[in-house]
Amino acid sequence: MLSFDEAYTAAIATFKFLVLCSYEKKRLPVAVMDGQGFRTISLVGLRQPCIHVEFFAVPNALVLAHRPGSVLVELISVLTGKRSQVSEREGSKSSQQPAWFNYTDSHEFMERVRVGMPPLIICVACNGGIQGKEASEVIPETADEIAESVHAAYEAGAVMVHIHARDPKNLTLGARETATWREVLRKVRQHCPEIIINATTGASPAMSMEERSSSLAAGPELASLNLAPDMSKFRLKERRPPLLFPRPPLEIDECTPYTYGQIHQFAAEMKQRGIKPELEVYHPGCAWVIDYLIENHLLEKPYWIQTVMGYQTGSFPTVDNILQLLKEFPDQTLWLCSAIGAFQLPLTTFATLMGGHVRVGLEDNVYFSRGRKAVSNAELVQRTVRIAHELNRPVATPAQAREMLGVRSEPSQY
Amino acid sequence: MLSFDEAYTAAIATFKFLVLCSYEKKRLPVAVMDGQGFRTISLVGLRQPCIHVEFFAVPNALVLAHRPGSVLVELISVLTGKRSQVSEREGSKSSQQPAWFNYTDSHEFMERVRVGMPPLIICVACNGGIQGKEASEVIPETADEIAESVHAAYEAGAVMVHIHARDPKNLTLGARETATWREVLRKVRQHCPEIIINATTGASPAMSMEERSSSLAAGPELASLNLAPDMSKFRLKERRPPLLFPRPPLEIDECTPYTYGQIHQFAAEMKQRGIKPELEVYHPGCAWVIDYLIENHLLEKPYWIQTVMGYQTGSFPTVDNILQLLKEFPDQTLWLCSAIGAFQLPLTTFATLMGGHVRVGLEDNVYFSRGRKAVSNAELVQRTVRIAHELNRPVATPAQAREMLGVRSEPSQY
Amino acid sequence: MLSFDEAYTAAIATFKFLVLCSYEKKRLPVAVMDGQGFRTISLVGLRQPCIHVEFFAVPNALVLAHRPGSVLVELISVLTGKRSQVSEREGSKSSQQPAWFNYTDSHEFMERVRVGMPPLIICVACNGGIQGKEASEVIPETADEIAESVHAAYEAGAVMVHIHARDPKNLTLGARETATWREVLRKVRQHCPEIIINATTGASPAMSMEERSSSLAAGPELASLNLAPDMSKFRLKERRPPLLFPRPPLEIDECTPYTYGQIHQFAAEMKQRGIKPELEVYHPGCAWVIDYLIENHLLEKPYWIQTVMGYQTGSFPTVDNILQLLKEFPDQTLWLCSAIGAFQLPLTTFATLMGGHVRVGLEDNVYFSRGRKAVSNAELVQRTVRIAHELNRPVATPAQAREMLGVRSEPSQY
Amino acid sequence: MLSFDEAYTAAIATFKFLVLCSYEKKRLPVAVMDGQGFRTISLVGLRQPCIHVEFFAVPNALVLAHRPGSVLVELISVLTGKRSQVSEREGSKSSQQPAWFNYTDSHEFMERVRVGMPPLIICVACNGGIQGKEASEVIPETADEIAESVHAAYEAGAVMVHIHARDPKNLTLGARETATWREVLRKVRQHCPEIIINATTGASPAMSMEERSSSLAAGPELASLNLAPDMSKFRLKERRPPLLFPRPPLEIDECTPYTYGQIHQFAAEMKQRGIKPELEVYHPGCAWVIDYLIENHLLEKPYWIQTVMGYQTGSFPTVDNILQLLKEFPDQTLWLCSAIGAFQLPLTTFATLMGGHVRVGLEDNVYFSRGRKAVSNAELVQRTVRIAHELNRPVATPAQAREMLGVRSEPSQY
Repeated sequence: MLSFDEAYTAAIATFKFLVLCSYEKKRLPVAVMDGQGFRTISLVGLRQPCIHVEFFAVPNALVLAHRPGSVLVELISVLTGKRSQVSEREGSKSSQQPAWFNYTDSHEFMERVRVGMPPLIICVACNGGIQGKEASEVIPETADEIAESVHAAYEAGAVMVHIHARDPKNLTLGARETATWREVLRKVRQHCPEIIINATTGASPAMSMEERSSSLAAGPELASLNLAPDMSKFRLKERRPPLLFPRPPLEIDECTPYTYGQIHQFAAEMKQRGIKPELEVYHPGCAWVIDYLIENHLLEKPYWIQTVMGYQTGSFPTVDNILQLLKEFPDQTLWLCSAIGAFQLPLTTFATLMGGHVRVGLEDNVYFSRGRKAVSNAELVQRTVRIAHELNRPVATPAQAREMLGVRSEPSQY
Repeated sequence: MLSFDEAYTAAIATFKFLVLCSYEKKRLPVAVMDGQGFRTISLVGLRQPCIHVEFFAVPNALVLAHRPGSVLVELISVLTGKRSQVSEREGSKSSQQPAWFNYTDSHEFMERVRVGMPPLIICVACNGGIQGKEASEVIPETADEIAESVHAAYEAGAVMVHIHARDPKNLTLGARETATWREVLRKVRQHCPEIIINATTGASPAMSMEERSSSLAAGPELASLNLAPDMSKFRLKERRPPLLFPRPPLEIDECTPYTYGQIHQFAAEMKQRGIKPELEVYHPGCAWVIDYLIENHLLEKPYWIQTVMGYQTGSFPTVDNILQLLKEFPDQTLWLCSAIGAFQLPLTTFATLMGGHVRVGLEDNVYFSRGRKAVSNAELVQRTVRIAHELNRPVATPAQAREMLGVRSEPSQY
Repeated sequence: MLSFDEAYTAAIATFKFLVLCSYEKKRLPVAVMDGQGFRTISLVGLRQPCIHVEFFAVPNALVLAHRPGSVLVELISVLTGKRSQVSEREGSKSSQQPAWFNYTDSHEFMERVRVGMPPLIICVACNGGIQGKEASEVIPETADEIAESVHAAYEAGAVMVHIHARDPKNLTLGARETATWREVLRKVRQHCPEIIINATTGASPAMSMEERSSSLAAGPELASLNLAPDMSKFRLKERRPPLLFPRPPLEIDECTPYTYGQIHQFAAEMKQRGIKPELEVYHPGCAWVIDYLIENHLLEKPYWIQTVMGYQTGSFPTVDNILQLLKEFPDQTLWLCSAIGAFQLPLTTFATLMGGHVRVGLEDNVYFSRGRKAVSNAELVQRTVRIAHELNRPVATPAQAREMLGVRSEPSQY
Repeated sequence: MLSFDEAYTAAIATFKFLVLCSYEKKRLPVAVMDGQGFRTISLVGLRQPCIHVEFFAVPNALVLAHRPGSVLVELISVLTGKRSQVSEREGSKSSQQPAWFNYTDSHEFMERVRVGMPPLIICVACNGGIQGKEASEVIPETADEIAESVHAAYEAGAVMVHIHARDPKNLTLGARETATWREVLRKVRQHCPEIIINATTGASPAMSMEERSSSLAAGPELASLNLAPDMSKFRLKERRPPLLFPRPPLEIDECTPYTYGQIHQFAAEMKQRGIKPELEVYHPGCAWVIDYLIENHLLEKPYWIQTVMGYQTGSFPTVDNILQLLKEFPDQTLWLCSAIGAFQLPLTTFATLMGGHVRVGLEDNVYFSRGRKAVSNAELVQRTVRIAHELNRPVATPAQAREMLGVRSEPSQY
């Protein structure tokens, strides 16, 4: 093993490029330094070559895999330092700007394209509360499965996780007790020391408002807050043995009947517990409720608002409809975009190029491409990271995301 | 009384203008014929002068009030005939085109501006089911009041009425029995021989789905069909004596929890009874339900879709949001626009200039201008007619409206 | 003749309504006073016209025609005084707000609808530089004709005039000399003591940049400033005797080739002379030039920007395209809307309901309705005023318009 | 070297994945085949490992680099065949649909997302006519440089090239003679047997209309057709020795004054020569000219329209403005998107996810990321290909692009 100085001097002297890889299983190359500066990149194919070596030399390049505690970590930090200096020169405007901006203002968009978009917050929606292994065997259901699946996604670049805990007595149902929630959150935290934990209060249609709020007492850092009654009709696949808790196919035709009073109560409990609400926007009418919550002092800036695209009965999942939703956002909003099924990929890419943030994962979409299921939450996150790198958009670290969101820098403990 | 020939010859020979007034109480001047052709106009003040005379001469003008059965009716029909000839020359494209068009297509809009918009269908929403005389003493509640108020609006130019029947045992509540509905519809028909009768199924939040459908068995020609669950929070004024059925002020915080199944059932019953549904669109997400209804063969063309602007939790009442709703409409749709409170006036005017159709009336708005309540449904309809005339938009007759909508030409009987 | 007190007391005591009519042939009613207050209705022309009849009684109403110097003028002023008091009570929020707002922001639009739109500035584009009496015999060409036509429009409610002076040696050509311009402006001022005078620099395609700026030295209060090169192809009708300066029909296929440098020069001369530029926007690309002018300190707030709809090669004349133009406007802009031909009526009505300002007149449109030519600039202005009144939008006085625009309160003198 | 059968059998038997790389210098991995089917991918990092080997084995994968004429080409074609079969099963709807669709129709967009977007046509704008090596030394100027640079971009995935030939006597000026143009086109064809050749008629502001059309006589397959006069102001860098034809920095303040007549003439010449026009749209006003050309029978379907974003004086380079341009497109249009500078990356990515087509290259943008210049046209094309692959969008082959565009399948010869 080379010392830091030796490594760095040798690298600079010998190679035209330094390629930084993450150390974890996937060993994604994440950055390149060359004569023209430091930049994040999208190089996925180098994974395998880096499995057994710390350094992997190819003509004109030095490929480095970092491991916590090794000198390579320091090398990265030095390079990161250089990166900051570069930023000061080139991107000074960007670093002085807040993460939020008016996404539909032409001048603000143009300015951000020129100086650089803020780091991308990637949220993994790991499992959802409606469908489970009958839809895709890799959807995590138990606390252990969730923790493991989220860990891989975290390694891949997710800095936030949106969780639906399940009832251990029947994994096809949502958790209704705080103890169940706490067990899931504890295990996730154990595997992902810095991830931002975001719990659902949406749960499933059949649940009471009290049962929905069982997640809040478990102490997540964020929680989803639905802003409108929801009506939908769909079919759930049969769940067959050997899956646990088999059941026949189900035809669902439901309405979740929210009122202003109930939404108020959820928001008030979140405020009292120090949990940041993630506001779920399905159609432009939800803007009335955002106004209501602001007028009632139930929200803190910056607002964190998700455009949830593709659900019945929200706006159709198109770019124009998203712009229309953004237009109604209050000032100082960070926008998170999710979309179901085949719309996840194009619309989260759209959010990435627009300066918004993205949610991907198996809750919303079990396919990687037409006819080919995703093998893990991590696989969907990896693609998001690659696309961000192609678009020269930095991916937020947990610390950056916490600062951008105004969430405590100390991760929650359970 | 002059014969037709005498009247017409004298008119042409003597006067520079012929001004046609409607004969009914309001005696609105509705058209002018002069050397430059026939055109509809907006002159309100001339009403009273025409009460006692058939001809009223002012310098250089002949003002005619028509009365069914008199020669003046024939004079009008002759003038109307001239108007048709003018239309054939100038507006032949217009007369060959269907009433519906793609409202957000630039070329179609430009073409319609050039050749003339289709006749404007004016629907009067006479009372609504939420507030009554405590909000404005001119809101009609009983069957007789409704019939009288609608009659005046019909005389003023409304060709469709949207009705909420009330429970005679408690006029602050919606009717839950078909007999009650039939009584209201019968009286309206008695006063307004050709008006198109449109009954609510929206009723009030506290009502069951069965109670809501009590209107359908009474046999309206159209009925409203809500396309989404609705959530709202508002205050109802105290209803004080001497008003009947007094009650304290009410704080309402409600959700009407529709499902696809329930909407399907309403639409199926309407189809079976030959009632045309008026599709109530609050936000772009309602387009999912329109697709659903079309796929399930529950609708007939042309569709009749209302953009309902200003309700919680619909899109904010702005022009841009209406355009966004229109964009999702299916082909062959006639668009009706309503908006509550202060938005009724600008947004129905917008619909008028765009080629859509409008709903005005006390259900949606009890004010004529800031600080000045409307004195009747008719007053709001009269303003709509004046604006249409200013915009050179003809106002549809009942027969025209029935043909445009595909509703039976024979008015319903009770 | 009754005295004022007698007239007023008699009116209040006897009649349910007071209806004010203009005196001219048409005797258009312009205002009503009843138990619920004073409000203007459709027609304003009351200024000069009301010459021979004083009272015109009909059952339940007193119809008044006013004549300058008579007691009826005072009656009007009393009624107007009542109106002001009403305004002070109801419209307090409105009066504290600036005239400009962000037209495409939902919350700002909704607020303005609720509290009342700012007074409407009506600009009359009296003649234009392209077509003359061969297109409509009422287009004014000579200085005297212009002054007379503008005077009638001013009486009808126009507070600004946009003028194209003509070369007296050939009235089919634009004026190229400052003396010619000054003569026109002088006569207009003579007839219209307070009107805001706005001169073109657009002139006609064949003119040099120097010739275009001949209007500036004559000292208008505003001047148009084109923001983009313009390309168009059209046919000018034959100009036949007895019209002066006859010529054959002309096929025009032209491009007016502006550069940033030339636009800079026009703006700099206007700034130096204290002339406020009216920025002519044809398509969204003109926003680059507005940015340029602001960055070069050539503009003062509030900006006065005209969306010019319907010209080749601007955005198609649709509502959606106007919204798109407005979206790019800088803060603190007053929006003026014009549109050619059949689009003048619907699109200026749209601007009226949106809180923008309007330009009407024979330059842009010689028709009143399909097949019927406008008889004067005043007729088009009168309709605009009627529509504003129907929409409860006050019409700006010259003093109000000068304050809103930041133009000197002392009218220019020549 | 293995035979095809040996290679394929060995691959299938031994490895979990087959990774296909392109053979050329860059050796981009372009596809993976595994148990779940064939899909295109974005793996760039494997380049170097594949330089010297035909096969490069890593655990569980077989990495193949193909070389024209080797068995690996056949292996690829076999795999491509499998891909087609997959497509027939999964994407049958997609293959039955035309390449064009209504990009702003929600239902059409949603349908295309579900069934798969048409293949992506990548056009490389290799050099432009305004700036040269003084801006980036890798901008090709001579015929040989152009041919070489385009060849690399073609290998990377570009199927169309947009070319500005230069005057060999002064490479800072555009070519004005057909012979010069033909020399460039001949060399490009020599290096890129199937590429679609698209020549400018835009040239540079100082050029006459006749000089601009010198490219047409050289026989390109497409040619650009500007649809509006253009005004811009910018600075060209100094061109210093050792660059040929040095010149001082230049301040440009220009207007290119097109007329309808000139555009008509260009279009007519293209039609006569069988050259498909690429319609250059800068702002929505250009839609007038498209209407004009269609009415004058100068265009053939499908139309090929480019939204040119970021130029003065076009619409600001935002997503919303692009949607507004698309809204005005005629039916049966294929949309190509270009954008200058920092906007090239986000806006061409936007077009990729929307189902449009993209133009990238050094004409519009000399940077790869902030502060780091692109090393070649090919590098920009490679990124576009990687992004398309991430978005599961197939990249069009020359044959596919020719069919989609309605361009002769036989490449032009010189």
